Order: sequence, then C-alpha cells, then structure tokens
Amino acid sequence: MTHSSPDEIARQLAFLVELDKLKSIMRQSPLIDRSRKENSAEHSWHLSMFALVLSSHAKDVDALHVVKLLLVHDIVEIDAGDHPIHSTSGSDALVEQAEQRAAERIFGLLPEQQGREMLELWREFEAAQTPEAVFAKALDRLQPLLINTLSNGGTWTENGVTQQQVMERYGPVIARGSPILWEAASKLVSGYFAEAGRGQGGQR
Amino acid sequence: MTHSSPDEIARQLAFLVELDKLKSIMRQSPLIDRSRKENSAEHSWHLSMFALVLSSHAKDVDALHVVKLLLVHDIVEIDAGDHPIHSTSGSDALVEQAEQRAAERIFGLLPEQQGREMLELWREFEAAQTPEAVFAKALDRLQPLLINTLSNGGTWTENGVTQQQVMERYGPVIARGSPILWEAASKLVSGYFAEAGRGQGGQR
Repeated sequence: MTHSSPDEIARQLAFLVELDKLKSIMRQSPLIDRSRKENSAEHSWHLSMFALVLSSHAKDVDALHVVKLLLVHDIVEIDAGDHPIHSTSGSDALVEQAEQRAAERIFGLLPEQQGREMLELWREFEAAQTPEAVFAKALDRLQPLLINTLSNGGTWTENGVTQQQVMERYGPVIARGSPILWEAASKLVSGYFAEAGRGQGGQR
Repeated sequence: MTHSSPDEIARQLAFLVELDKLKSIMRQSPLIDRSRKENSAEHSWHLSMFALVLSSHAKDVDALHVVKLLLVHDIVEIDAGDHPIHSTSGSDALVEQAEQRAAERIFGLLPEQQGREMLELWREFEAAQTPEAVFAKALDRLQPLLINTLSNGGTWTENGVTQQQVMERYGPVIARGSPILWEAASKLVSGYFAEAGRGQGGQR
C-alpha cells in the first residue's frame, strides 16, 4: 500500500472523525472563569501550549516530542472516560485495562504502521520513563494546579483537599519533570491556601 | 535574564492562563454529534491531530512545524473573535487590524524573545507562503468540511451554501496543500450533496 492510497486516507479520516468525541469527555476541572467544566480535547490543546512555552525549564527534553505525547495522551478517554486524581472510586487495574482496550480499538482505526506509532506514543506517556514523558506528566499536573489556584480552589474545594494533600499529589510529579517549575507552583499553592486562611486544617 | 528566572516563569504562566479564554470562543461549526458548537481551543487540538496523521500527504512539510502553527493559529481570536468563511458581515481589513493588535497584546505577555517567536509563527500561518503554512491552511479547511459532511451539512445548511460554493471556497485552499487530500475530500462533498438530492440547485 502506498502512503496515499484511498484506503489509507479513508482509515485516517475515520480516526480523525472518531477523535471528535474527545470534545465531549468532561473533566472535573473548571475553566478559570468557572463558566463550565473543561473537556479533554481543549485540555490537550492547553497542555500542548504549556509544552511549547515551558520546555526550556526541563532538562534534555525535545519540546515537540512532549507536544506529541500530550496531543495523544487523553484519546483513550473516548472509551474509558476521565479518571481524576482526587477520585476515590474505581480500581486502578480496571481503569488500566479499559484504557488499554481503548487504545487498541481507537489507534487500530488507523493504517497499521501509523496506529502502532500512536499506540507507542500513548504507552510512552503512561510509562513516564523518558524525559519527555516525565515532563508531559508534570505539565498534566501543573495545568489543573494553576486552574485550581485561580478558580476558587476548583476540584480542591469540591473534594475537600487540604494543602498537604495538594503538595503530596502534585509535588513529586511536577518536581520530577522540573524542580524550578515546582518551586514556582508550590508558591502559588501556599499563596492560595494562605489567602482566606484555608491552610492547614483542610477546606472545611 | 536567565531562562528560568522567577519573572520569566511568571510571564509564561500569565500567558498560559490567558489562553484559557480560547475555550470560550465559539465557532460556527457544530460537533459531529450536533450536541453544540465547537470552540476554538478544541478545534486547535483536533487540527493538530490532523497534522500528525495526514502530513505525509503533503510535499516537503515538517509535520511538527505544522502542529506548532496550528496550536497558535487561533489564539488571536481571544480578542478578535472567530470570523467564519461563509460570513458576509465585517470588513477583512478591520478583522486583520484587530487580529494584529490581538497578537501583539497576547504574545506580548510572554518573555520578549519567546513572544517574538510565537508572533512569527502566527504571521507565518497567516501569510500562507511556507509549505507548512500552506498545509496548515488546507487542514483548517478540511476539518470543517469533514464535520459538515457528517453533521447534516452543518454551517452549509445554516448558510444555504451550494455544492458549487463549497467547491470554490474549500477546493483551492485544500488542493494547494495536498491534491490527494482534495481528491478524497471532494468525493465526500459530492456524496453529501448527492444524498437527498441537495446537489446543483442549492440546499432546498
């Protein structure tokens, strides 16, 4: 099969049509203006811009490879849904299985070689071993942290998350990707909890 | 200023916070399931995926540079709004001025050098001269074409656009970026208008 056979294009377009559904997968995080919840497609765009803008604060990362990882990282949610980090329901193993099946089905819509490449990108992100995947994971925590500090606590308020829990759930992942970004982010967190005395004792 | 000074990071985060507003800029195109209109942030993600998947059908393009152009191409709409191709209102020169001012304000939030680089990406897209910008423009037409053929005509139905007008408004831009993609897309258009006899004489 040549690279431009009608069948190849038909499969690629079928995949791109399927991706439209990611615009209807809703996350827990609000938009900063709190007008509604964020969806996973616009979240993926926002994160890709984080990668373009912030990659110089990470060591040895190819910014555009980070972008690729972030463009594809949530596509499995079309079948498996979004699983927020503050959620207490559901087993990690079941979620992992569902995401694995989703990746095979959705990337399987593509021509074989291209589908394999996309599947590899998603697996690289999930494994969080390469410098780019480590940094992509850090940005995937930094973006909701930023939104929460600017939208009256966002999912933290909703879930009664304390400052200490924020530090524990976001800190190691962001610091692993970029110590200097975690330094800046942790100041935003302290500032948010200090304001209105929401600090040590939890949200209420 | 070093690359990781606190002031540099503060400016970058201010820019990324500002970008959240693109999620509230509504386009005319619906989602394929017609549940609502599409916004410009999720549109930019979808187009970036078009670039990753389809770039081998264009000559001499660096797929990741196309992605960069598409990630930033609509950011000016935060100030200047979306201007659909079927719209008959508004002067092109006024829109251009508004977008130019928007680009300077929004990219001006970034550290100077990085702001200039983003501004250059946006200007490259607008000028449509480099192979990557030509292909990015083609994808920016192909995506709504695909959505319209799958959502009962979408903006074509709303605006009473005929098959001939579709061919004229989408054809040259898509074909300039990729003749083979236009060949595939024009078949989708013919198929759409043939079904239910919506063809030569307009929508009804």
